Amino acid sequence: MMLAPAPGRLFGLGVGPGDPELVTLKALRLLQSAPVVAYLAAKGKKGNAFSIVESYLKPDQTLLPLIYPVTTEKLPPPFNYETALRDFYDDCAVEVAGHLKAGRDVAVVCEGDPMFYGSFMYLHDRLAEDFPTEVVPGVCSIVACASVAGAPLVYRNQSLTVLSGVLPEEELLERLRGCEAAAIMKLGTNFAKVKRVIDALGQTDRAVYVERATMANQRTAPFAEVDPATVPYFAMVLLPGTRWEG
Amino acid sequence: MMLAPAPGRLFGLGVGPGDPELVTLKALRLLQSAPVVAYLAAKGKKGNAFSIVESYLKPDQTLLPLIYPVTTEKLPPPFNYETALRDFYDDCAVEVAGHLKAGRDVAVVCEGDPMFYGSFMYLHDRLAEDFPTEVVPGVCSIVACASVAGAPLVYRNQSLTVLSGVLPEEELLERLRGCEAAAIMKLGTNFAKVKRVIDALGQTDRAVYVERATMANQRTAPFAEVDPATVPYFAMVLLPGTRWEG
Ligand SMILES: C[S@@+](CC[C@H](N)C(=O)[O-])C[C@H]1O[C@@H](n2cnc3c(N)ncnc32)[C@H](O)[C@@H]1O
Ligand SMILES: C[S@@+](CC[C@H](N)C(=O)[O-])C[C@H]1O[C@@H](n2cnc3c(N)ncnc32)[C@H](O)[C@@H]1O
Repeated sequence: MMLAPAPGRLFGLGVGPGDPELVTLKALRLLQSAPVVAYLAAKGKKGNAFSIVESYLKPDQTLLPLIYPVTTEKLPPPFNYETALRDFYDDCAVEVAGHLKAGRDVAVVCEGDPMFYGSFMYLHDRLAEDFPTEVVPGVCSIVACASVAGAPLVYRNQSLTVLSGVLPEEELLERLRGCEAAAIMKLGTNFAKVKRVIDALGQTDRAVYVERATMANQRTAPFAEVDPATVPYFAMVLLPGTRWEG
Repeated sequence: MMLAPAPGRLFGLGVGPGDPELVTLKALRLLQSAPVVAYLAAKGKKGNAFSIVESYLKPDQTLLPLIYPVTTEKLPPPFNYETALRDFYDDCAVEVAGHLKAGRDVAVVCEGDPMFYGSFMYLHDRLAEDFPTEVVPGVCSIVACASVAGAPLVYRNQSLTVLSGVLPEEELLERLRGCEAAAIMKLGTNFAKVKRVIDALGQTDRAVYVERATMANQRTAPFAEVDPATVPYFAMVLLPGTRWEG
């Protein structure tokens, strides 16, 4: 009779915003000691997280790419993108669990921080109760953008509002009205809408635009000068808190 | 005639939430190559940031402790804590500038991330225009607490509200009402007030309490069981976003 091996451990490793040097010592150690390295990526792409850690990998590590379903957000009912995504994450969890059950540790590398708008959360929700799991926090995109822009983000007792640019225009307007500091993520085609909101609130001059922070093709620009047609998904608008003149 | 040396560079190095292994490769490299290492600390204490990096320092590095003025927030007019702090940061900037003018790089180590409620911001505001400055982002406390608690913080297009526990009860209540996900920092003696607000909003069961995340004496506890008398300053309450069942 063969005994089942002790289950492998699931690691969610935050690998930071882009610069491979912004990986933590802990994430690097756990990454290099994991027999299986998993990452999410779009079809035909390497994926951001994988690109960040690629140079750190060793030849004997097994790669487990988890490739997003190619579909748009518009599908004829009863199909929809939400369902397709849920099925995809279910499948990912099964694949990862296969390795864990066989006793192999799996390191899932995650852009930025794993628990902050990260896809790793969907694996965590499906696996953390059944397998020993450790999450290693990473440098998230918000603070990376603030550093790159040289923009202190929140002073003393100011409040910070973090929003997704996917939100409807009215909701963005409502949530940004009177906010002390803010970060608006997920730009891309949402930029034109976000710009209307920021302009309407009279915040144009205060807004800071950062694209691909700490990556090789990083770019910052005065908000008013950004051409909406060129804005990638990996971009952010910051409204830094008013400088404390204390 | 002696030429003035090229000015030194100012580095604001995020060194993460507590675990020395959560320092990034970049912060470690710049830390170890700086002739002068500065850090803020209360009188008679080492300071958190310094403790995090202490084991990485080399014998020939000059330490520049910047010691907070010992004073309470209540001083007789015309004196007040704000003024004392401002004078303190002015003095700090002069000390740091002395090294920079002499051509020595200064690495200021910062707990968590430098631009996220960090004291480094006050040096940045005073020095970044006059000296070459680079800020290296770090793992901030919010994502560290979420990792330690195993609590995915924000899903998809949820909004995140970050608040200081110093805020008045009414304002906390107003800002937390109907929020999708939140982090409340700066607890300590503010905990009892924060608890009243969270209880009043019916969020007690959802709230997650984390103390000294990733430090040796880290602790997490169900929110309802926390004894307000024991809550340190380095603690946080998270209200994680509702799990996306996609
Ligand atoms: C799905 S979220 C992932 C966030 C990530 N887990 C983190 O901790 O930052 C993707 C959004 O993060 C932001 N983002 C991530 N990396 C970025 C970078 N290097 N520069 C600018 N924005 C970035 C963009 O707004 C992007 O739309
Ligand atoms: C002045 S702020 C500094 C924040 C820091 N710059 C950062 O990036 O996280 C201090 C507050 O951060 C939070 N904090 C910092 N480190 C923490 C830790 N290791 N565990 C829990 N909370 C922490 C606490 O709420 C504390 O009151």
